[in-house]
Amino acid sequence: MRGEVSVLIQSEYDIQFHLLQPTPMVAMLHVHPSVEPMLTTPDRLKVEHIGPVALGESAVELPVEEFLDTFGNRCSRFLAPAGAIRLSGRNIVRAADHPELQGFGAELDPVNKLPHEVLPFLLASRYCEVDRFVAIAHDLFGHMGTGWALAAYIRDWVHDHVAFNYKTARPTKTAMDVYTERIGVCRDYQHLAITLSRCMNIPARYVTGYIGDIRVPFGGAGDFSAWYQVWLGGKWWDMDARHNYPRYGRILMATGRDATDVAITTSFGRSDLTHFYVESNEIDADGKPVPLPQKLSLDPAPAPLS
Amino acid sequence: MRGEVSVLIQSEYDIQFHLLQPTPMVAMLHVHPSVEPMLTTPDRLKVEHIGPVALGESAVELPVEEFLDTFGNRCSRFLAPAGAIRLSGRNIVRAADHPELQGFGAELDPVNKLPHEVLPFLLASRYCEVDRFVAIAHDLFGHMGTGWALAAYIRDWVHDHVAFNYKTARPTKTAMDVYTERIGVCRDYQHLAITLSRCMNIPARYVTGYIGDIRVPFGGAGDFSAWYQVWLGGKWWDMDARHNYPRYGRILMATGRDATDVAITTSFGRSDLTHFYVESNEIDADGKPVPLPQKLSLDPAPAPLS
Amino acid sequence: MRGEVSVLIQSEYDIQFHLLQPTPMVAMLHVHPSVEPMLTTPDRLKVEHIGPVALGESAVELPVEEFLDTFGNRCSRFLAPAGAIRLSGRNIVRAADHPELQGFGAELDPVNKLPHEVLPFLLASRYCEVDRFVAIAHDLFGHMGTGWALAAYIRDWVHDHVAFNYKTARPTKTAMDVYTERIGVCRDYQHLAITLSRCMNIPARYVTGYIGDIRVPFGGAGDFSAWYQVWLGGKWWDMDARHNYPRYGRILMATGRDATDVAITTSFGRSDLTHFYVESNEIDADGKPVPLPQKLSLDPAPAPLS
Amino acid sequence: MRGEVSVLIQSEYDIQFHLLQPTPMVAMLHVHPSVEPMLTTPDRLKVEHIGPVALGESAVELPVEEFLDTFGNRCSRFLAPAGAIRLSGRNIVRAADHPELQGFGAELDPVNKLPHEVLPFLLASRYCEVDRFVAIAHDLFGHMGTGWALAAYIRDWVHDHVAFNYKTARPTKTAMDVYTERIGVCRDYQHLAITLSRCMNIPARYVTGYIGDIRVPFGGAGDFSAWYQVWLGGKWWDMDARHNYPRYGRILMATGRDATDVAITTSFGRSDLTHFYVESNEIDADGKPVPLPQKLSLDPAPAPLS
Repeated sequence: MRGEVSVLIQSEYDIQFHLLQPTPMVAMLHVHPSVEPMLTTPDRLKVEHIGPVALGESAVELPVEEFLDTFGNRCSRFLAPAGAIRLSGRNIVRAADHPELQGFGAELDPVNKLPHEVLPFLLASRYCEVDRFVAIAHDLFGHMGTGWALAAYIRDWVHDHVAFNYKTARPTKTAMDVYTERIGVCRDYQHLAITLSRCMNIPARYVTGYIGDIRVPFGGAGDFSAWYQVWLGGKWWDMDARHNYPRYGRILMATGRDATDVAITTSFGRSDLTHFYVESNEIDADGKPVPLPQKLSLDPAPAPLS
Repeated sequence: MRGEVSVLIQSEYDIQFHLLQPTPMVAMLHVHPSVEPMLTTPDRLKVEHIGPVALGESAVELPVEEFLDTFGNRCSRFLAPAGAIRLSGRNIVRAADHPELQGFGAELDPVNKLPHEVLPFLLASRYCEVDRFVAIAHDLFGHMGTGWALAAYIRDWVHDHVAFNYKTARPTKTAMDVYTERIGVCRDYQHLAITLSRCMNIPARYVTGYIGDIRVPFGGAGDFSAWYQVWLGGKWWDMDARHNYPRYGRILMATGRDATDVAITTSFGRSDLTHFYVESNEIDADGKPVPLPQKLSLDPAPAPLS
Repeated sequence: MRGEVSVLIQSEYDIQFHLLQPTPMVAMLHVHPSVEPMLTTPDRLKVEHIGPVALGESAVELPVEEFLDTFGNRCSRFLAPAGAIRLSGRNIVRAADHPELQGFGAELDPVNKLPHEVLPFLLASRYCEVDRFVAIAHDLFGHMGTGWALAAYIRDWVHDHVAFNYKTARPTKTAMDVYTERIGVCRDYQHLAITLSRCMNIPARYVTGYIGDIRVPFGGAGDFSAWYQVWLGGKWWDMDARHNYPRYGRILMATGRDATDVAITTSFGRSDLTHFYVESNEIDADGKPVPLPQKLSLDPAPAPLS
Repeated sequence: MRGEVSVLIQSEYDIQFHLLQPTPMVAMLHVHPSVEPMLTTPDRLKVEHIGPVALGESAVELPVEEFLDTFGNRCSRFLAPAGAIRLSGRNIVRAADHPELQGFGAELDPVNKLPHEVLPFLLASRYCEVDRFVAIAHDLFGHMGTGWALAAYIRDWVHDHVAFNYKTARPTKTAMDVYTERIGVCRDYQHLAITLSRCMNIPARYVTGYIGDIRVPFGGAGDFSAWYQVWLGGKWWDMDARHNYPRYGRILMATGRDATDVAITTSFGRSDLTHFYVESNEIDADGKPVPLPQKLSLDPAPAPLS
């Protein structure tokens, strides 16, 4: 990053649950350890018990234990008491002033050259039924080259064949469901693309992180995002079967085999989400939001009436 | 083991493939690192190219690279040339002279007391669709207590409701398929029991290893076996939904979320199995096999003919 | 019906589609032939092409062909031109002045006594995977008696274990999906109950029809409904796993193996629903709506402020 | 058939079950009503109770009731007592002396021109998940023409992408399972081909019948066969995704939506198959089997040793 022109990206979240009973929880709300060197602020997760309380009483902060999971993600765990719980945080990252790099020409590493720790990302996982897709993937992509070109073709095929629809999200939806229903949310696009990539011996892993509206027009209320990465030419490359064009300001939070491994929060017991706010935006040196470009209108300007 | 009476168990295998082209392979054919202190011999995996060769030529041993995967299993990888390949090995383990211990009374650890590395064994995986079984598990087991009693009840429920049948094995068979078809092989029993255990917040992991005919009558040609482990009262306990009674001489080879993580061999390309031999037997101090007990016959002795 | 006290129920609908191209359609919008003797008005389906048209032009009625399908349902087919299409109709039925009859004590007919035409309703169909549920049904209901008691127990079990949620509807959802997800709409409840009934050798068939808010408080905007019927003691009985209490004014439109057979409309090509209105209400002899009872409030009356 | 050269085909079967208790059964062992005019013998199904009996006692014939189901198939039902049951029969059909006709150039009938009774063969059924295959079918075949050419392309695609393997048969296997596993038996090939055809608006129905080794070399022990039919140009045409070349002597027994509708025998209770013999062969005017052609050998003749 040194010597590069950079941008500042501020991310913040406030997520609240109502719990009926004391509930163990695990959160993955930190930036990924690989992103920590780019932080310009601490990246603290605050977990508070905020009620039921009499008016005027203050929230009580809960002790949180941090650990790295076997994928290298920073995780937080705590035992939340019954009642209202708030998880909140804010961080600023100095990111590269360009969209994510494209690996044009990157070659497929033969399996025997892959680092040990990359091998599991060729295998099946809960939402990625590689074993059921082998023949299908070869039908679709067996003649489509190799390396980056193949990986990008798979990404674009998924993008073109699946329609986005928030209402169709469900926790049991697998790559096969996406392939047959052709409708889904972020994570569904990525699960299908990951599965098809693995079938073609391209290691692929699932990513959660921030993708704010940065240098693009306002796109709606913020949310955490899912994308994926493929291993080509000796490194991981960002891929996104939903937003399949280069974006500014992807900030990595966690990686795993699929959504199972990197849930933003996991509650071991019933929890009802009561509030959800996430934003990730470019700021200037004074901490003020950088204005977004206008959406280009394809409609002709309204003609004068007389 | 020191001071305990022990038995010697010798395991050996010879597995051969025919390959059409050079093929990267990963094998999990060593005993588990936790078993290494009990080895009385080296535990070497020999990988050889054995043909096609002119008669009289000797086999060529291939270089093998060893590594530990993220679950702590000892793995071997190599690039096998086209032709005939043999994987063989032999080891002797000094094992406890009693069947596996039972955890009667072991208590369920609350999720917030579980070690970090145990948490993933509560989640869904390829063959264990925890997310689809939560309601089913609570219907079946919600009133069946907790801790060891619950874990053993789940194991026995699976044992009693699934019939063994070699011909029904297939690589895509999940816990849900086992639950609906009620027929399967070793791994299918364990996948269903693991899934149901996780739904009840009992961490459960899949195991491969040896279970020879030791102190039991001859049961047929040898094979690698699958069983599972549950985490209760601060440790992992062996469980087996197929052979749900205590056995001598389980020798652990690898553990993982499910069969995906611990395949005995994984070939990245087509491989045809041409030979398969596995045995695990008790031997005496001279290395001779200890005779097996006779099978008790329920048939009356044949009556004299006159 | 003669000599019985009866009620008048008026049903009406107006359903509109936009079609990109000429599209063959089949509709099941008539009352069932078995209901025809109770009609006090004609039961005419009007199919009109209503645009795009210049303002002031009138709609053009389309020719419709009627036929009985193999289940005995009255079907309508027509070739709709591109543009806007309206299907509308209205009918009045003289119905019994009591909720549907309950078959307390009705006995299970042995399979060999069933009429030929009832046999197919023991078999699997698209949304009712009888073959995958046999063992599950016997686990759940194998000890729950027989005949009406068993049939009602199955209905109530489904009612109690599935939560209603409009947003979870999807055209590929089968009984197995309902059993694992425990959430669904009308048709999903009935598919699960039908499947479980068939597993216990109770013939069960899917029904579509009207269930208006009749003698019950207002329940929201109208819709067509799904319920099911079981064959016990020599006849079909209405069952409803969603509204599992006796209702006034169920008006049968079509029966089949499952939702596949009795879609209200089937378009062979893309069709976009643009308008949907259905109501079914009790009217008096003058044709005026009979007021509905108030919903009983469990909240105490607001206390006077002073 | 009059004036045409014809062949005589004799079919016979002997199927035996062991029953633990009195069991209602339905059999579809007659030739289809459309084939009856070509019979040169009666086509009688004999159902006998053959034991357990003391040696020398004769079998007892059971009363059988015949009926036509809604698809027009001739069905037989009876209540079999506990013990051993034999279903046997024999018939001779005068068949056309040519393989089944090919519909080269036959056109797709627009849906609005289809006879009413053909419409259900466009819909989904238990083993044919049309709703899950629509997008897949359009990916694969959307650019492959229409009518006979498209229908034959689908048949051949299935033939080329699925491998035959008796051991993989299972009663829950659907078209989607065949599509992902690419392995199956007769019925599995047809289910996938039927599903894909329906997705392309080609009506397709499942067929059971005889296909003996007639004018082809001996192919192994006899069995009933499955194939399918497509509706093109105003009539049903035989199609077979397993034996996708014209065959002599297909004899139709029953048609339905899929294998659910046309099981050779259905037992409402447990039945164990103990004997199974089916043969269908060409005979000459004297009733003697016509010899089969030799299989052409691709191996060179063994060279003389000296």
